[in-house]
Amino acid sequence: MKLELLRELSITNNTKILLLVIDGLGGLPNESGRSELEQAGIGHLDRLAQDSLCGLTVPVAFGVTPGSGPGHLGLFGYDPEQYTVGRGVLEALGIDFDLHSTDVAARGNFCTVDGDGLITDRRAGRIATARTVPLCEELARIKLPGVQVFVEPVRDHRFLLVLRGDGLSDRLTETDPQREGYRPLPVRATAPEAEATAKLLNDWIAQAQRVLSPYAPANMLTLRGLAKHPPMPSIAEICKFRAAAIAAYPMYRGLAKLVGMDVLPTGATFADELATLKQHWDSFDFFFIHFKRADAAGEDGDFQAKIAALEEIDTYIDQLHALQADVFIVAGDHSTPAIVAGHSWHPVPFMLHAKQFARADNAEGFNEKACARGSLGTFPAKEVLSLAMAHAGRLTKYGA
Amino acid sequence: MKLELLRELSITNNTKILLLVIDGLGGLPNESGRSELEQAGIGHLDRLAQDSLCGLTVPVAFGVTPGSGPGHLGLFGYDPEQYTVGRGVLEALGIDFDLHSTDVAARGNFCTVDGDGLITDRRAGRIATARTVPLCEELARIKLPGVQVFVEPVRDHRFLLVLRGDGLSDRLTETDPQREGYRPLPVRATAPEAEATAKLLNDWIAQAQRVLSPYAPANMLTLRGLAKHPPMPSIAEICKFRAAAIAAYPMYRGLAKLVGMDVLPTGATFADELATLKQHWDSFDFFFIHFKRADAAGEDGDFQAKIAALEEIDTYIDQLHALQADVFIVAGDHSTPAIVAGHSWHPVPFMLHAKQFARADNAEGFNEKACARGSLGTFPAKEVLSLAMAHAGRLTKYGA
Repeated sequence: MKLELLRELSITNNTKILLLVIDGLGGLPNESGRSELEQAGIGHLDRLAQDSLCGLTVPVAFGVTPGSGPGHLGLFGYDPEQYTVGRGVLEALGIDFDLHSTDVAARGNFCTVDGDGLITDRRAGRIATARTVPLCEELARIKLPGVQVFVEPVRDHRFLLVLRGDGLSDRLTETDPQREGYRPLPVRATAPEAEATAKLLNDWIAQAQRVLSPYAPANMLTLRGLAKHPPMPSIAEICKFRAAAIAAYPMYRGLAKLVGMDVLPTGATFADELATLKQHWDSFDFFFIHFKRADAAGEDGDFQAKIAALEEIDTYIDQLHALQADVFIVAGDHSTPAIVAGHSWHPVPFMLHAKQFARADNAEGFNEKACARGSLGTFPAKEVLSLAMAHAGRLTKYGA
Repeated sequence: MKLELLRELSITNNTKILLLVIDGLGGLPNESGRSELEQAGIGHLDRLAQDSLCGLTVPVAFGVTPGSGPGHLGLFGYDPEQYTVGRGVLEALGIDFDLHSTDVAARGNFCTVDGDGLITDRRAGRIATARTVPLCEELARIKLPGVQVFVEPVRDHRFLLVLRGDGLSDRLTETDPQREGYRPLPVRATAPEAEATAKLLNDWIAQAQRVLSPYAPANMLTLRGLAKHPPMPSIAEICKFRAAAIAAYPMYRGLAKLVGMDVLPTGATFADELATLKQHWDSFDFFFIHFKRADAAGEDGDFQAKIAALEEIDTYIDQLHALQADVFIVAGDHSTPAIVAGHSWHPVPFMLHAKQFARADNAEGFNEKACARGSLGTFPAKEVLSLAMAHAGRLTKYGA
């Protein structure tokens, strides 16, 4: 349902919802004919599926391969075609940068230019992060009139640029010409209110080029995904609950913060995350807890590592279940099949276990084929939140 | 996904997509309890289904029985509720009339009026085409100031009227009162910019009435579906591919042309169409090939003829498959169950076979029941193109 309707129908009570997101959960069969989930020993997930409502979620739309942003926003109830998060903002979230709603953020790439200013390497030979750090310190000394400028290293040749001040606009074009042999493009305003911001950025780029000139191969830079923190309604307000996010990786913490969740400090492993969850169990109504390893293994194209990651999260299912959430959901933000070695468009296994009023499907297990036969069918991820709220007794009747 | 997003995400590569549309594909059980597809000997389709992604397409919306226009537009990725093709335009496409984007086309019906001008037979006794041809020649002699007028026979009492000139508008009402005992209505403008066009048409109708007066029962006419060629974005531009249409029937060629496909000359049979496909295989990335007989048999209410038509197309499946398209889709524009003897609203069997990354459903066969259990579930036909593009590796990631 639309967020406006959810806001209208949501009511408070003392139930708890636990949303476990297994990043990159969905897969594809390898030559054996069975997928990662089908081959993994995941007895706890399989047993939970027998007593759950099952289906496959479509993260954005049929055929669309989502990035992490749209993949999570859908599960949080936001239509990912309506609510978009710019690359600059995601980059800021990814390093825990405290982005304000009026800041303009950009992803920066160091690059190499020749004597004529033409780009010869769009990634500056992928210089190491250790070399990017001092370059960012140099660039951070550049001053612009009336705005604060932040330059933060990210990884390899990538950095974050943030302008902070009044009246900035993100209706701006990127400077990366997307191929070598061309000059970086100027920033252009796509709306009149962005002219001043474009001028500031072009001034900054001109100064940056002078600063960088001795540092070949990183003697120039490009800016991409210039964006402001998008205006997002708060999930906590819409659902009238206290929402907490537990994620080891900064980007997922940032996404959760964007939609109005309280981000709980936690450690680097899922065991740390689980400890954080238990510690705060009494203080919140809704918990988003994130497991990253399955996606990382899929991205690496490592079928066995993905199986191992799924088997790892399976060992935590009983502890999660033992918390006795009124609604316990296991979902994925997108598929990352090892044979694709990247995100993909394939619908994602999903299950919802509820203490009461769940019409369980008696699924044969928790995998792509079994979930395809679930009664939820293949459905949009943005409906997950409504289903959770309903099964938690947190939605009132619609209409008389 | 929306066409704007598809345009944003589409990329080029050297993969091929083959879309076979079996017109009127879906059916219903007869007294035996099994549908046309279930009774037909279609071993090749059944085997292909085992190795494909299966589902049922909803051409327009639940419960909507589509005409040929909306049925095909959906499969071509256009939301048939948003993109509509007027009856006048479809009539023009159906006789291969070369309609310009500024023309206004109308479907004409000869009718019978009595001495008071009241309609006594809305179809002029369904006069034969042979009688309609000379009447159209007479009418074509009528001149209007500043515009060209075309009058073309279609079939029986039906003809096509086209006005060609500058500044014509199709914001116009129809003249058929829809029942006998009433006078034909005047054409009325529903927007100020159409006043001049309405006047031209009413002048033409007055002259036409004088011309027709000696030719009872065809002594008058009505005009319906006054429409211009709708503005359609080009599928070839949106998807960044070269798209070809192969169809023996003019209306399907016309629909394909409307959405920006190259229409290849071909013969009258499916064997001719297949030869055309093979001949042009290297020159295009996307092929739409059309099989008509299943629909015709369904329209006739001939259960056995529909089975025979399905068995005929089945004999071509191996040859189509042997072309090794990266994505091979078998779909229908709508259902035409023989027991309905017409188009119907029932979702239509669908399968997508891909060379890689297809999560095949191991369907038991290619029919309504087996496809209903496929992982695509019952889904909108307008999503077919996105799925095809994804499986052909022609879509980039959405969002960071």
